[in-house]
Amino acid sequence: MQDTNTRMHAGHGLLPRPRRLEPRWGRLELGSGLLLEVGSEPARAIARRYQQRFDRLLGAPTAEAPTLRVEVQAAGPQPAIGDDEQYRLRITASGGELGAATPWGAVHGLERCLQLLQQDHAGAFLPALLIDDGPRMPWRGLLLDLARHFFDLPTLLRTLDGMAAAGLNVLHLHLNDDQGFRFESRRCPRLHERAGVGGYLRVGEIAALVEAAAARGIRIVPELDVPGHAGAILFAHPELAAGPAPATLPRAFGPSRYALDPSLDATWGLLEAVVDDLVELFPDDYVHLGGDEVHPEVYAFADDRRRAWMAAEGLADPAAVQAWFTRGMVELLANRGRRVVGWDETLHPGMPEGMTVQAWRGASALEAALDAGHDALYSAGWYLDLSYPARLHYGLDPGAPAAELAAAEAALARSAELADVREGVEALQAAAAATTGMLPTAPERGRLLGGEACLWAELVTAELLDVRLYGRLAAVAERLWSNPLDTDVASFEARLPAWLTHIERVTDCRPFSGDPAMLWRLGVAPEERTAVEALFEALEPVRWYKRLLGIGGVAARQQGRTAERPYDADTRLDRPVDQLAPDSIAMFVLRRALFALTADPNDSATLLMLRDFAGRWRMLPARLASLQARSDPFAALTPRIEQLAELAELLDELLDQVVAREPPGMALRQRFDELARTAAADVAETELAALRPIAAWLESQA
Amino acid sequence: MQDTNTRMHAGHGLLPRPRRLEPRWGRLELGSGLLLEVGSEPARAIARRYQQRFDRLLGAPTAEAPTLRVEVQAAGPQPAIGDDEQYRLRITASGGELGAATPWGAVHGLERCLQLLQQDHAGAFLPALLIDDGPRMPWRGLLLDLARHFFDLPTLLRTLDGMAAAGLNVLHLHLNDDQGFRFESRRCPRLHERAGVGGYLRVGEIAALVEAAAARGIRIVPELDVPGHAGAILFAHPELAAGPAPATLPRAFGPSRYALDPSLDATWGLLEAVVDDLVELFPDDYVHLGGDEVHPEVYAFADDRRRAWMAAEGLADPAAVQAWFTRGMVELLANRGRRVVGWDETLHPGMPEGMTVQAWRGASALEAALDAGHDALYSAGWYLDLSYPARLHYGLDPGAPAAELAAAEAALARSAELADVREGVEALQAAAAATTGMLPTAPERGRLLGGEACLWAELVTAELLDVRLYGRLAAVAERLWSNPLDTDVASFEARLPAWLTHIERVTDCRPFSGDPAMLWRLGVAPEERTAVEALFEALEPVRWYKRLLGIGGVAARQQGRTAERPYDADTRLDRPVDQLAPDSIAMFVLRRALFALTADPNDSATLLMLRDFAGRWRMLPARLASLQARSDPFAALTPRIEQLAELAELLDELLDQVVAREPPGMALRQRFDELARTAAADVAETELAALRPIAAWLESQA
Repeated sequence: MQDTNTRMHAGHGLLPRPRRLEPRWGRLELGSGLLLEVGSEPARAIARRYQQRFDRLLGAPTAEAPTLRVEVQAAGPQPAIGDDEQYRLRITASGGELGAATPWGAVHGLERCLQLLQQDHAGAFLPALLIDDGPRMPWRGLLLDLARHFFDLPTLLRTLDGMAAAGLNVLHLHLNDDQGFRFESRRCPRLHERAGVGGYLRVGEIAALVEAAAARGIRIVPELDVPGHAGAILFAHPELAAGPAPATLPRAFGPSRYALDPSLDATWGLLEAVVDDLVELFPDDYVHLGGDEVHPEVYAFADDRRRAWMAAEGLADPAAVQAWFTRGMVELLANRGRRVVGWDETLHPGMPEGMTVQAWRGASALEAALDAGHDALYSAGWYLDLSYPARLHYGLDPGAPAAELAAAEAALARSAELADVREGVEALQAAAAATTGMLPTAPERGRLLGGEACLWAELVTAELLDVRLYGRLAAVAERLWSNPLDTDVASFEARLPAWLTHIERVTDCRPFSGDPAMLWRLGVAPEERTAVEALFEALEPVRWYKRLLGIGGVAARQQGRTAERPYDADTRLDRPVDQLAPDSIAMFVLRRALFALTADPNDSATLLMLRDFAGRWRMLPARLASLQARSDPFAALTPRIEQLAELAELLDELLDQVVAREPPGMALRQRFDELARTAAADVAETELAALRPIAAWLESQA
Repeated sequence: MQDTNTRMHAGHGLLPRPRRLEPRWGRLELGSGLLLEVGSEPARAIARRYQQRFDRLLGAPTAEAPTLRVEVQAAGPQPAIGDDEQYRLRITASGGELGAATPWGAVHGLERCLQLLQQDHAGAFLPALLIDDGPRMPWRGLLLDLARHFFDLPTLLRTLDGMAAAGLNVLHLHLNDDQGFRFESRRCPRLHERAGVGGYLRVGEIAALVEAAAARGIRIVPELDVPGHAGAILFAHPELAAGPAPATLPRAFGPSRYALDPSLDATWGLLEAVVDDLVELFPDDYVHLGGDEVHPEVYAFADDRRRAWMAAEGLADPAAVQAWFTRGMVELLANRGRRVVGWDETLHPGMPEGMTVQAWRGASALEAALDAGHDALYSAGWYLDLSYPARLHYGLDPGAPAAELAAAEAALARSAELADVREGVEALQAAAAATTGMLPTAPERGRLLGGEACLWAELVTAELLDVRLYGRLAAVAERLWSNPLDTDVASFEARLPAWLTHIERVTDCRPFSGDPAMLWRLGVAPEERTAVEALFEALEPVRWYKRLLGIGGVAARQQGRTAERPYDADTRLDRPVDQLAPDSIAMFVLRRALFALTADPNDSATLLMLRDFAGRWRMLPARLASLQARSDPFAALTPRIEQLAELAELLDELLDQVVAREPPGMALRQRFDELARTAAADVAETELAALRPIAAWLESQA
């Protein structure tokens, strides 16, 4: 039994990794269920909710069921930054105890218990242990962009469960942008009525969301993105435009020239009303005011009225105009008792003290904000919409010294997975670095509060969300929670597949693809699902902005030209590439199995699993022939299907050699390299992810 | 294109089959989505709801999207029996029109449109056609038993969607029984507080359920089961017992002696209060008062007080006591404007006129009720909890002459699938027939309103519901909707798999097994899921009451003894047999493929599919070895796993012979018969369903 415990604790899947975990001898048998005992009144609501979740896995507790006593010292109505989120969990062979200062700490402890549940021959159990745990950083967030595609209440509710399982505590909602305005404004209903096309959150829905979030210890931080990204606001109120106003609700993606005119009283009338709405709807201390990507030419006012206004306010240039605007917004919010976050473009000598900066353009912006005395959040390396593999996000620690974080960002740009877009990544990094660094140093350095993973939604819909989110969110979550010295990417990748399975089991989130409606839209017949799954798990989407700009658009951009983008807000996201996880878990599993078999060529279960991969790939041309004939999107994947069939041959030969304890032959290496060269050509915005584990193995055997 | 249409209409999956469908030339292309246009005000709410459902499959409609105009003449607040549910749907190459007298008719038409959506090389489309349709019978119901296991609001809400897809219009909720009381009683809160263990519907939840049902044209008929089955009521109010009262909430299944004492004023005080609750909560015209299985000895009063009471009321025997009780209930409900349904035990010369009888014991009870002038519902052959295959339910038509229905019931008892329980089935049929037929014939025969599929929930939980329900519910639904002369079981079985896939696609119902939490409870690792799925789809649970009474219990019963039952309300339903669909869809598919290959031995896609079945079965021992070693429930399935591996060999040989256009050899037949004999032995309450399609094929080749 000690063996089981030791093996489990060594890599037993807790994600994020706890601060301190001591395995103990024995286990708590749960064959009769688990009864959550309310040790103190503030624990009652939580115990009731988690009782249901345990029951779903264990069945309702019978009279013989052991108890887990939950003690919470005090319940606040809402979670707030800096709340004590620690917990202490003790599991023995006879029962368990969980203690926390706040309900949010207890939530973390109960999520760990769910994750620790095990099954074996003798039934379900919790391993005996002591956990003493709490998060490293107080702001552990996820940004969801509701503007480019709307996420409705059920989607957001299940995401709260996924976030709780990851130990995250801030859901940052990007509520407006050029493409849409996504909440019901009681005071300015034109905003959601005209610009809420595609959906918006109603007043009652927001109340339900805030309540559900608070029950999970999650704060909701609303973002009103102003003064730029204002296309939707200006479609409803064109009279407030500093530059152009859109005649129809904008559908195009990418930076626009839609910005509010800060010189108009009417602008401030609208902003005051919308801020009043926001403050009523969202109880959190913080509001995010956006402030990113205001096109400087729009604020380079040339008309007499606004030149005079600038002179009267002492504003020298567009940057000063934006800083003046920011001060106005911060004052509005401060008068209502709220603190303000802005994107790193709000960094300016004239920006208000006490404002928190969210660094999205790089380590230099984070450092500049902290150095100027501002609290700061890191997001630059954590843009989940870029389809990077999890380990690239994992490598970035905003708590590291500035130079180290900058070096890690530079290393990311040089990673093998981004070889085809390296120039673009580096050009953006250089441009971002050039814009910061002109601020005076404050006497007291700001605090790093934490950070946020950002999932911008140009290419994400509610039905695609889970597949795009969880694999990489886990990397950011662990970085924000766990001891940075205690982590390594191999351990993370070893725990990730089990964590995703855990999410699928204990929440309504579905991090693996396979939604029946989506498969229908792809034209997949039920009997073809298995083959399509085998194909999809061997592919990944192209990375960085290669989809959003278009393959040709990336090349054009590198030559300083702009090209038409292939996607806008009306483009259907219903092709195979949309269904792909950016970081295929099956390919993690394949890689680990390859190395495991090499360590023990007699491991017949692992050999069988590897032969299965080859078997599935080999049959793809036959099994998908009819689908390719019926469906253009699948016909476009024909090269990938053929490449996988060829890779199956190589994998089988390679396995023969491993079993025979022979090193991989030169002929096999040459055929693999040839296949890798062929597969580098673009095929329907996909990459042949199946190459990677085999390449890694071949390299290790060199 | 005409070919596609013709093929599609011939057996193109509409289930239930419409009254009249005329294919037209051409199709309505839906590449840009479908816009539902509100043709008249009463259609607005429906159009909004279905727009979302079409969008999920087609994407939001763009400006070029064709329209489907929905005209509804008038909206009632609630559906009522006899409402006009007809609709007329016309799809042309340029758009569509749907007309109905009521919103409920429009719902049926829109459900048909969802089901008619097709995908091919050129994208999504609706086939051009004209449908003129309406249900055969006005009461098309499903009984869900919330008492033995509770089904919560989300479960009931998704079930409403599944029912709408089947064209059903009555959800009959069995709200109390010995094991639980399942709704919030404002006037008698002890009932749900003491006896609602495991869950009950709150007042607000019932309101939400009634509203969601009405939006789908579904009536909710609540059942208060009195005076028998009263264990839960008597646990809360033991002072009202006619016989024994339970000291703890009953957990045992099967008929009990818990019945209300009709001679007490207090009984009527409670009943009046609970009826007032029900009438407030449920707006439907009908209330079901139960009335089944009152143990006659309990009402054979021997004490002076009740003998005197009987004499005063002129009641000669226990049956008269129950009839007196029924009259009291009907009066209570009539005073509140409600009509009453009762189970067929309420049939009695003294029962009130105007009461509707639900025949659950057989054709004779149905005929007796109609003959005595009562409206009637048929359920006898539609008990879905007995794990019969769909085609057995399909064969029973309550609209057929009484002798034919009785003959069909008798034939059901003689079907091959029930060979092992035939004695039991026939004994029950005989006992039921003996209890009816002593009623005077009324001058006017009653009306057959329709019927209900009944899913008693001793062995069903919310997570098992969908797998147990839909495959067989479809058979009952078609019988109640479609022209009885226009149906044959082969057509039904050919359409059923696509209908289940349709349900999975357009609702949150999951009629195929594979819930991740359930698989975890079974100890299945993610990489074992595919193999477990291949095993489960080759098995079915044992039939009739063989699980509920126990294999030994059935034998004991046939010898007139009673044996302890293996299940009660606390028994965990978390073994493989619980996960099995009672009628494996994969085995339908296998059988159809076998016959198709025989018709065209060059059909390589079908051959590949059949080889895949054999391939999956052959590998089961290797792929499940680790699971069998870890898990007792899977270890118990070892004989089935070995039998499937052997069946794989036989199937492969058989396929070789089909491809070679040779008849199946005698040796192969002998080996098959030998395997079938071995497989007849009980293995963990399962049957080897995979034998059946191959047996059917061998028989056809004799």
